[in-house]
Amino acid sequence: MLINQKHYRSIWLHPDHPGVVQTFDQRKLPFEVEIVDIESPQQACDAIKDMLVRGAPLIGATGAFGLYLATLLPELGEAENKLQKLSDWKEKLLSTRPTAVNLQWALERVYNRMADCLDADEMSDTALKAVQSILDEEVAMSERIGMNGLELIREISRRKGGAPVNILTHCNAGWIACIDYGTATAPIYLAKEQGIPVHVWVDETRPRNQGARLTAWELGENGIPHHLIVDNAGGHLMQHGMVDMVIVGTDRTTRQGDVANKIGTYLKALAAFDNQIPFYIALPSSTIDWGIRDGIREIPIEERDEEEVLFSEGWDGARIHRIRVTGTATGAVNHGFDVTPARLITGLITERGVCPASEEGLLSLFPEKISTSPPGPLS
Amino acid sequence: MLINQKHYRSIWLHPDHPGVVQTFDQRKLPFEVEIVDIESPQQACDAIKDMLVRGAPLIGATGAFGLYLATLLPELGEAENKLQKLSDWKEKLLSTRPTAVNLQWALERVYNRMADCLDADEMSDTALKAVQSILDEEVAMSERIGMNGLELIREISRRKGGAPVNILTHCNAGWIACIDYGTATAPIYLAKEQGIPVHVWVDETRPRNQGARLTAWELGENGIPHHLIVDNAGGHLMQHGMVDMVIVGTDRTTRQGDVANKIGTYLKALAAFDNQIPFYIALPSSTIDWGIRDGIREIPIEERDEEEVLFSEGWDGARIHRIRVTGTATGAVNHGFDVTPARLITGLITERGVCPASEEGLLSLFPEKISTSPPGPLS
Repeated sequence: MLINQKHYRSIWLHPDHPGVVQTFDQRKLPFEVEIVDIESPQQACDAIKDMLVRGAPLIGATGAFGLYLATLLPELGEAENKLQKLSDWKEKLLSTRPTAVNLQWALERVYNRMADCLDADEMSDTALKAVQSILDEEVAMSERIGMNGLELIREISRRKGGAPVNILTHCNAGWIACIDYGTATAPIYLAKEQGIPVHVWVDETRPRNQGARLTAWELGENGIPHHLIVDNAGGHLMQHGMVDMVIVGTDRTTRQGDVANKIGTYLKALAAFDNQIPFYIALPSSTIDWGIRDGIREIPIEERDEEEVLFSEGWDGARIHRIRVTGTATGAVNHGFDVTPARLITGLITERGVCPASEEGLLSLFPEKISTSPPGPLS
Repeated sequence: MLINQKHYRSIWLHPDHPGVVQTFDQRKLPFEVEIVDIESPQQACDAIKDMLVRGAPLIGATGAFGLYLATLLPELGEAENKLQKLSDWKEKLLSTRPTAVNLQWALERVYNRMADCLDADEMSDTALKAVQSILDEEVAMSERIGMNGLELIREISRRKGGAPVNILTHCNAGWIACIDYGTATAPIYLAKEQGIPVHVWVDETRPRNQGARLTAWELGENGIPHHLIVDNAGGHLMQHGMVDMVIVGTDRTTRQGDVANKIGTYLKALAAFDNQIPFYIALPSSTIDWGIRDGIREIPIEERDEEEVLFSEGWDGARIHRIRVTGTATGAVNHGFDVTPARLITGLITERGVCPASEEGLLSLFPEKISTSPPGPLS
């Protein structure tokens, strides 16, 4: 996407320095747009662990680049058992965010390609090709999700006689969490490219404000009209006809179409359902957990540090600053995600098409999963 | 209620100085607990206008005290037409928050009592008595609401075998918005007094954070166990059985039981309904607008400054500080309230009892309003 009118993926190899990977420091966005160099596998570990990068696809790509950078270490050229050294780095990179499925998948893929390499040079070439193909596949995935979601926007635009389509989104399932286009944002960016007028309501997304900080920023940089709203506002806007559709991302989708996403998603789904507004989830099929059905009962919800709720972070005119929003006698509870039951979801926008949020719907697009049925009754 | 272990109403006459009214500066709470002196009608105007005081009953009381302070002005003793001077002050006090119905009612009441007074001294005595009776009536109103709501808590406590009753609230309909006890908080404080264990989930209530700043603070000062949550969290907590009931206040209730309250209330009502959790509104009947039925169509919703959304205010360790939560290219839309339709509300807790949120329900408690039917069909 565009940043300062220049096209960027969210992570890339420096064009002149093959030992330098570059990305944006997301902890500082949108207040400081800082491109950072990652020059060693250790720096890749730190970037993931310190949340300089976030978003499953970007974390996976950063890990994969980290393994590539390990092949460039001078000590690797001299090492007896090069594959063992790389395996150690793979484990180290994986341990930065142990629950990130995407990270494991990307690391295994790069690592496995190097099994038959003869020397460090060949390992580097092979690793880099594997990383680049991961990036290209992620972008192609986002584009396919975008094309499928675009048709939904186009249809609403037609019905509105070309008036702007008002889309509400929650958190950030955008370019900056992926490699390009994003997931929930992909249909929006493609609509803009095709000249379909859109306007986005961006949920602030407390406690970490990913909507206010990341989604609003990337939409703005790419010329998408948008307004920030507090997380409390969506229901009122829907009651008054100011929202035409909702598109959000997901961290995990069950076989029956229940969706775990950033806390607060469920409340917006309830409001959309109550006002008969279509509510869509954009997702690569890699986030579908075919082994479970009931999201509310079966998806464990991460409980995070209360500090995220007790404080808010922003720009004070000179620097990024953290303020306490409540008194010192008050503690907080901080669940990171909630689960939206399939009954509230209009459709799932996948790379293979749009389907109802149900086991039947998902299996119609992914028939190869019919044989993977988990124990328990069909929903 | 208790603040630093000492009992306070939210506004009072200085015990030793009859020309000094005292209240808390709510703009600084909970970070600085500052009692301010109001010593003239002009200072009363400023306190209301600058939002040093907020909450309909407290605004009314502050205005009434302001008119009392006007009777103490030296120039009034010498004035020819004392009532005209006081009427001028009444208008000036009213103009500080022109939409506050409570303010107008309180000012008229104090003013009308002075019509037959012979001199400034008698005016002062009469005004002070009128103010004190307004305060006492507000407290009695809160106590009656509290007693009626208490029975609902007691019943849940019984069903839970005495385990703590988890109550979710949004915004601040507390002691600090009223004179004592509050409205939504009154049943909670009375439950505590009666030894019924309760725990309160306090919605942060962006954009102005009244939950984080005021509700959490007054609950803490009064020994009520509570946790702060982001506005996004309530639905998840309800899905997992962590909320037994919701009690919120209201700014305006229609004849059919639709309720305008702080933005975001509607989302919590949807979640409570979806999870079969009782959702109650605590209200003095003075906030019922008997002249309208359909809250979503008929209640105008105030659109406020976008700055409230773009910024967040809190404590940076040394002082109250404002940070920008989004980039400078992003604007915001900021509706102050939303309307929760009666169908989502379990009951209205009034000073006369608890009734269903419907025209029939309200008229069963307020039969004198049967003759005030507005145009349009019964709902």
